Amino acid sequence: MYTFEHCQDIINKELEEISLKDSPVNLYEPIRYILSIGGKRLRPSLTLMGCNVFSDIIDNAIYPALAIEIFHNFTLMHDDLMDKSEIRRSYPTVHKKWEENIAILSGDAMLVKSYEYISKCQEDILDKALSIFNQAAIRVCEGQQYDIDYEKTTDVSIPEYLNMIELKTASLIAGALKLGALAGQSMSYDTDLMYEFGRNIGIAFQLQDDLLDVYADPAVFGKSGGGDIVSNKKTFLLVSALNSKDKKIIPVLKKWIEKIDFNRDEKIKEITEIFNKLKLKELTEAKIDDFFKLGLKSLDKISIPDKRKIILRNLTKRLVGRKK
Amino acid sequence: MYTFEHCQDIINKELEEISLKDSPVNLYEPIRYILSIGGKRLRPSLTLMGCNVFSDIIDNAIYPALAIEIFHNFTLMHDDLMDKSEIRRSYPTVHKKWEENIAILSGDAMLVKSYEYISKCQEDILDKALSIFNQAAIRVCEGQQYDIDYEKTTDVSIPEYLNMIELKTASLIAGALKLGALAGQSMSYDTDLMYEFGRNIGIAFQLQDDLLDVYADPAVFGKSGGGDIVSNKKTFLLVSALNSKDKKIIPVLKKWIEKIDFNRDEKIKEITEIFNKLKLKELTEAKIDDFFKLGLKSLDKISIPDKRKIILRNLTKRLVGRKK
Repeated sequence: MYTFEHCQDIINKELEEISLKDSPVNLYEPIRYILSIGGKRLRPSLTLMGCNVFSDIIDNAIYPALAIEIFHNFTLMHDDLMDKSEIRRSYPTVHKKWEENIAILSGDAMLVKSYEYISKCQEDILDKALSIFNQAAIRVCEGQQYDIDYEKTTDVSIPEYLNMIELKTASLIAGALKLGALAGQSMSYDTDLMYEFGRNIGIAFQLQDDLLDVYADPAVFGKSGGGDIVSNKKTFLLVSALNSKDKKIIPVLKKWIEKIDFNRDEKIKEITEIFNKLKLKELTEAKIDDFFKLGLKSLDKISIPDKRKIILRNLTKRLVGRKK
Repeated sequence: MYTFEHCQDIINKELEEISLKDSPVNLYEPIRYILSIGGKRLRPSLTLMGCNVFSDIIDNAIYPALAIEIFHNFTLMHDDLMDKSEIRRSYPTVHKKWEENIAILSGDAMLVKSYEYISKCQEDILDKALSIFNQAAIRVCEGQQYDIDYEKTTDVSIPEYLNMIELKTASLIAGALKLGALAGQSMSYDTDLMYEFGRNIGIAFQLQDDLLDVYADPAVFGKSGGGDIVSNKKTFLLVSALNSKDKKIIPVLKKWIEKIDFNRDEKIKEITEIFNKLKLKELTEAKIDDFFKLGLKSLDKISIPDKRKIILRNLTKRLVGRKK
């Protein structure tokens, strides 16, 4: 069986050897750049690992995996532009290093390239692979639009927030796993279970991300927390706080959200105190646990001996920060 | 046989009935908007007409035709944003009516939607249809990048310019026709000839467009000319003038190109006079004729009775402004 690290190596090697034309330089250089500045290669590795659950040979999953990774990097390129982010993985973002129009057009070309790769998968699964890929791709766009819409309002319900992260984050993780299962010649029933596994695990990952911004140990997490709090990013914690029944809390939160000039540490401290008071750490951990268990239930149902699922299950545990 | 007008009606009807979700509103409303504000539906009609050359039944060409039209409108949405154009088909452009990020993301979703439609084509041609579509899509991106690059320099050769318009404009027209031929169950040899027909005709269309900006009769063309001259747009005429052997002309042209404050009519008049002096009207007309004839040669070679090609040939003639 292939480990996560082995799959990452395969993907990194494939990406290094990816064939891209030299010109126009301003179209292809940003693509080479964003693909070269790292990243965990989680999604394409999940495609390979999803395949490996059903098949010892994972070669058929490589093109779909690359399609997923190129698509994911396309979304980063356009999201960074839309969010005006200047740094991605410690490097300047494409629209900063080049310019906005180049980020638009290179992103477009990457989206086309991702379809070139999904088109290369075996002919007998092409139709289904495209359907999975199309569905994931449009859901990611929908999720990103809700995310942008929700930036402008404090009136977001918890179900709306969960739907948004399912679309924006979980649908690509689920699609990546489902494509892997499909490439591994899984039965249709198992392919759908793999999607459900990925969907729930994907939501759990995002909630874990939300949690770590506030409660991570900086020594372990590698960056000082509170960035989401400072930027008013809608997270499960903030949305939960804004939906709190304790009506005294809402005006305090809104005051902080509206403030232009503030002391960063003070804002983080005060909002974290509200989160603590509302026991949102515990609530979020419980939610992560719910989705994690729901995901594992689907993985368990897949009609394959358990020993073929252990690596995937352990990776998932690691990613949602569970010791056992 | 189906006429152009009949094909336009089919496409317009299909576009009216296209199924798009209601929300997120800011993702789907701009797509509905750009698809509803008209346009000649030339490319998708060419897909239907390309199919009709080989087959009386054109139903199989409808999904590829819609894919082409949605893709074309995606390029308009992103190109208008990159060019900062405010008006498209007498209506405000998407980034003006909404905002820039909405134009980016709705455009992305349209590109995904175009792949949804190409994915719906018959399974026995899916692989080839994707390959044609992918190739056209990436070429359009490459052409747009060269176009942007060439805006910033006066040092563009005629072959570079022709390559740029081939990529940006002709490759989608050629791809549209080739997809139609494929959907009409044409032989591979004929499918390639249809591409060559479209490629040459597409270049001729663009040269005709370049010509009409300067030499159209406003009463016929419906808008006053010279817009390309005013905006320094690289056209076949301007590129030819900048490559003129008459070295006295270059500094005059460059002076006009660099001028920020100028009288619009004076600029049009003086540059048109340079074009006249260099006989660029005649040169461009001769080039159009070359590409037109090359295109027709490919159409003639297609192994189908000539009577099935007449409507397509006559449309082409009409579009490159030929009386006979």
